[in-house]
Amino acid sequence: MAIIAPSILSADFTILGKEISAVEKAGADWIHIDVMDGSFVPNISYGPIIVDACKKVTTLPLDVHLMIEHPDHLIPDFVKAGADLISVHAEACTHLHRTVQLIQESKVKAGVAVNPATPLTCLEWIIEELDFVLLMSVNPGFGGQKFIQSTLDKIEQLAALIEETGSRAIIQVDGGVGPTTINGVAKAGATSFVAGSAIFSTPDYAQTITMLRQQAEVSAGA
Amino acid sequence: MAIIAPSILSADFTILGKEISAVEKAGADWIHIDVMDGSFVPNISYGPIIVDACKKVTTLPLDVHLMIEHPDHLIPDFVKAGADLISVHAEACTHLHRTVQLIQESKVKAGVAVNPATPLTCLEWIIEELDFVLLMSVNPGFGGQKFIQSTLDKIEQLAALIEETGSRAIIQVDGGVGPTTINGVAKAGATSFVAGSAIFSTPDYAQTITMLRQQAEVSAGA
Amino acid sequence: MAIIAPSILSADFTILGKEISAVEKAGADWIHIDVMDGSFVPNISYGPIIVDACKKVTTLPLDVHLMIEHPDHLIPDFVKAGADLISVHAEACTHLHRTVQLIQESKVKAGVAVNPATPLTCLEWIIEELDFVLLMSVNPGFGGQKFIQSTLDKIEQLAALIEETGSRAIIQVDGGVGPTTINGVAKAGATSFVAGSAIFSTPDYAQTITMLRQQAEVSAGA
Amino acid sequence: MAIIAPSILSADFTILGKEISAVEKAGADWIHIDVMDGSFVPNISYGPIIVDACKKVTTLPLDVHLMIEHPDHLIPDFVKAGADLISVHAEACTHLHRTVQLIQESKVKAGVAVNPATPLTCLEWIIEELDFVLLMSVNPGFGGQKFIQSTLDKIEQLAALIEETGSRAIIQVDGGVGPTTINGVAKAGATSFVAGSAIFSTPDYAQTITMLRQQAEVSAGA
Amino acid sequence: MAIIAPSILSADFTILGKEISAVEKAGADWIHIDVMDGSFVPNISYGPIIVDACKKVTTLPLDVHLMIEHPDHLIPDFVKAGADLISVHAEACTHLHRTVQLIQESKVKAGVAVNPATPLTCLEWIIEELDFVLLMSVNPGFGGQKFIQSTLDKIEQLAALIEETGSRAIIQVDGGVGPTTINGVAKAGATSFVAGSAIFSTPDYAQTITMLRQQAEVSAGA
Amino acid sequence: MAIIAPSILSADFTILGKEISAVEKAGADWIHIDVMDGSFVPNISYGPIIVDACKKVTTLPLDVHLMIEHPDHLIPDFVKAGADLISVHAEACTHLHRTVQLIQESKVKAGVAVNPATPLTCLEWIIEELDFVLLMSVNPGFGGQKFIQSTLDKIEQLAALIEETGSRAIIQVDGGVGPTTINGVAKAGATSFVAGSAIFSTPDYAQTITMLRQQAEVSAGA
Repeated sequence: MAIIAPSILSADFTILGKEISAVEKAGADWIHIDVMDGSFVPNISYGPIIVDACKKVTTLPLDVHLMIEHPDHLIPDFVKAGADLISVHAEACTHLHRTVQLIQESKVKAGVAVNPATPLTCLEWIIEELDFVLLMSVNPGFGGQKFIQSTLDKIEQLAALIEETGSRAIIQVDGGVGPTTINGVAKAGATSFVAGSAIFSTPDYAQTITMLRQQAEVSAGA
Repeated sequence: MAIIAPSILSADFTILGKEISAVEKAGADWIHIDVMDGSFVPNISYGPIIVDACKKVTTLPLDVHLMIEHPDHLIPDFVKAGADLISVHAEACTHLHRTVQLIQESKVKAGVAVNPATPLTCLEWIIEELDFVLLMSVNPGFGGQKFIQSTLDKIEQLAALIEETGSRAIIQVDGGVGPTTINGVAKAGATSFVAGSAIFSTPDYAQTITMLRQQAEVSAGA
Repeated sequence: MAIIAPSILSADFTILGKEISAVEKAGADWIHIDVMDGSFVPNISYGPIIVDACKKVTTLPLDVHLMIEHPDHLIPDFVKAGADLISVHAEACTHLHRTVQLIQESKVKAGVAVNPATPLTCLEWIIEELDFVLLMSVNPGFGGQKFIQSTLDKIEQLAALIEETGSRAIIQVDGGVGPTTINGVAKAGATSFVAGSAIFSTPDYAQTITMLRQQAEVSAGA
Repeated sequence: MAIIAPSILSADFTILGKEISAVEKAGADWIHIDVMDGSFVPNISYGPIIVDACKKVTTLPLDVHLMIEHPDHLIPDFVKAGADLISVHAEACTHLHRTVQLIQESKVKAGVAVNPATPLTCLEWIIEELDFVLLMSVNPGFGGQKFIQSTLDKIEQLAALIEETGSRAIIQVDGGVGPTTINGVAKAGATSFVAGSAIFSTPDYAQTITMLRQQAEVSAGA
Repeated sequence: MAIIAPSILSADFTILGKEISAVEKAGADWIHIDVMDGSFVPNISYGPIIVDACKKVTTLPLDVHLMIEHPDHLIPDFVKAGADLISVHAEACTHLHRTVQLIQESKVKAGVAVNPATPLTCLEWIIEELDFVLLMSVNPGFGGQKFIQSTLDKIEQLAALIEETGSRAIIQVDGGVGPTTINGVAKAGATSFVAGSAIFSTPDYAQTITMLRQQAEVSAGA
Repeated sequence: MAIIAPSILSADFTILGKEISAVEKAGADWIHIDVMDGSFVPNISYGPIIVDACKKVTTLPLDVHLMIEHPDHLIPDFVKAGADLISVHAEACTHLHRTVQLIQESKVKAGVAVNPATPLTCLEWIIEELDFVLLMSVNPGFGGQKFIQSTLDKIEQLAALIEETGSRAIIQVDGGVGPTTINGVAKAGATSFVAGSAIFSTPDYAQTITMLRQQAEVSAGA
């Protein structure tokens, strides 16, 4: 069962409420919110104020991806704003186990996000606690990047680790996911798919989401 | 002549385009955009993506207040997104003269923002280059603060410095500015007024903006 | 009326409770606790755990001097541990007004500490809110420093600022204060005196404290 | 042979000398000193001044656990204060090999501490140089945490690495170690046990330490 | 085929042009330039200005080793100054894949440098993109260090990873490489050898370089 | 008496020894060495290794301008390399008094450098200890900047402060100083002049230095 999570980074922010309602109606499963602080990544996107705005217009789970340093300081604000899932970067967390605990103590699902060059060893001792893992298939926070092919091997390796440890974690992939890449991603073992412009730049969100889901489910079953 | 600059921090972000059009129609002069990075201030608000959204729906000058560390890295992005005025914090700039130059080289008006406890000596050698000074009348980035009364003396002291140096800079005040405080602020010498909830929490933006402007102009003339 | 504040930095930490009781019995007014983080200053001394220990054995006001970066993060812990007065460094606080507010919201007296080379302009817009100012007469966090003579002029200049603004703040001096320097310090206008080895390295604390107080009061009256 | 290392973090700091003498008389092997800087971990505990105090009252080895950034700057101070063993965090050391060298050049035993979520790969190229490894079984610097069960597997995996490389390193475990957990920890391969409240909150230190040691030795032999 | 890369850190900087010409004439293959920023390593060496000076006097490839934090900010300057190869430290790059891309987009060869205690897992997902890997056989930025023997095992392990992944990367070794160590290094699989004082402290550069190359090639063939 | 201090930033680094000998023979008084760390300023220039090279070829005083964060860490290395004067930036020193002390304890002359927008209040409590003040007349570390005119007023204000306090400090100016600006700078009160390309880009260093000195001395006498 594929989870399609449109990233609002590609939405029209002058009509954000309408955009979110549109993807909700179009069948989206989660709303993906990319938070950037200008320090962990070289751009600033948005923070709790936008999570709060999303919460007002949708009942879909809000999936908040924190590309920020020192996430512990802001996690309570994101929880309060309505986050249902929060992922933090392994590269940003000295006390990763504690940060995951902090998220889960608030009854929010916790994920760990992993940069393209970061080894999966960073998940070894935390995977059993996680609700999901977010594998980056582009470098986060930089524009105009394309899907990194070696992500497919990384998904498979992660899927093996999850099976081996009996973890309940699901695999989410973010970056360049769209019609030409989703098959491989799903086949390798991912079940949650973040898509930005691949959805918001198309005229008919429902058609796009349906198509992405279908591709993912067929490939997963293959 | 009073410049009323509604801060979108208090707008409804599900209908941002509509909110901006509404304050434009209601007589706003500038759109004030509060950028926070979670490091200079303890919250993250939004970055260039929201400046870009504003630009699409208004021809009003976009007045971007950078509450961020290392603003030089992101100034080009804010310029590209459509900023017409940019203010940086004296407390965040080791090379303040250079940062002001960088803004002005892009044909954007440059301001320096000053925290409540920061002395005006920090402006002495840069005031002649500035287009505006933003005096904070609350602590930026913290919620639920009220107007700090000593700001009135600070405005007067700054007005004296401006006159003494022949600077063209105008004085902007941000924080707790509304019906009960604008008179004092205007009388002390400010001509640009940032107001957030004082505008967006009222039912009739036009009425509010007109009233604020009137109060400011009467007080300034007094 | 002189306030003598023995700094436990020079006490015997194997019998801290006894040391504190001894200076209390000897007539000390406040217990001064020097907190260092290895970042604002190059040494680590101690944190809330020692404030907590002091609280258990004395009813004297605990005067906590935070030589630390980002004091806002730890102020709640120091309050909880029993601090009655907290001073933060002007050089460590980007949002000094906010930090002072944060201390006072907890019903704790707030002070600002100022390094030897730091100008008093940093106090101009906060002095009216303060309960005390701590002028450093040595460089904090470095051993074996001796009293910097120009501190006397600085005390006088600060006393003038306090009088001019009608502030209730009292002046505390820390660093090399002892029998040979307290006269000048008191005469210049300080009323709270931090003394470490000048007290703890003498055999009879009561005699020393009485003598320091006498000198201070005579000089202040002169 | 089990090494019981009471952590003074749970001792009564008003009578620290007495507490240390008491655990020494009660059979403690090492005195464990938890140094926190408010930056690597969110709390400040104490620094060289407390190591120095401990040295005055005991001949037991002082086992100093540095939960601090940039340990190289302060290692000379801890050596001078009397540390016999120093552990630094893998997560805090960019030049881990150099830091270990620096400790050992001072004839002090060197250990590397590892957070709960940190993979053991970080030890691969340094294990042969180490005198001990400190596995954290709770998140360091946060209160009220309980023993993380997966530490048992981690100890076994580390024990295998040590055997495989012929390293002389012993395994120390810190966090939630007490009567209900020490059996598992010892059986998995640890030989040095840090215990704080498990010792200092009991009325009879000798009885507690004897019991912990017995449990550990029986389990190790099992 | 051995690549001998004299590090100018040991050259006479009063006659840098002459030194570079001398090693070029003596048969050097690359000129190795050690850039230190006083932050990633505790010393400052030199930056783009010296790369620029080297470029003026030689046509040999300039091999620039960046021992700096945030290399992305300065990579464009090093490219412009004439770098032909740039290596960045795995320990300094949160977005390692992006940094490698940035170097290669400028048609410069990209390498990743790895500290003595850093595990090779950090290369797993980037090795296929790399032109070379720089294994440090001493701790970078500290004087008077000698060759760390375990580097030989690390070279072999890296060589296996390279073969397994089909990567084109070559292995460079830096630190204590000279007549007594180059055999082992070459035999283990390195083909690029950085040597500083081992070359510049000898009277006849040609003789030294020839001898080093011979040893390396014989050992590699062994 | 004018002190002409050629900045080697504009020298030919392939023949640095020759360049320094040339300006020495041409009548230069000090050799000015601009140290940049890529953090306080956005470029890396060079560190102690170049001071060391200069020392080998000249007996002129080496005047080292540290545009770096945390200068205390590296001051011992610059002293050892042969610095005769060291200036640190007011903006980079939390403990400015201590840093000045540290320089002077090594029998090296101490100066404080001040950025274009930094107020002179930062010198108030340290001026009496200083051997010189370096006023920046361009933004340090950025290329292609031209002389900032308001520096002339700043020199005068500083000269007044020096006279008022009886300080022995002399005034040095750096940035865009050359034939068209030196008159004003000297007239305003500076006596030490840093010139880079204004000297090294001319064909006859002796003629240039003589001319600059003459202009400065005539203007100073005016």
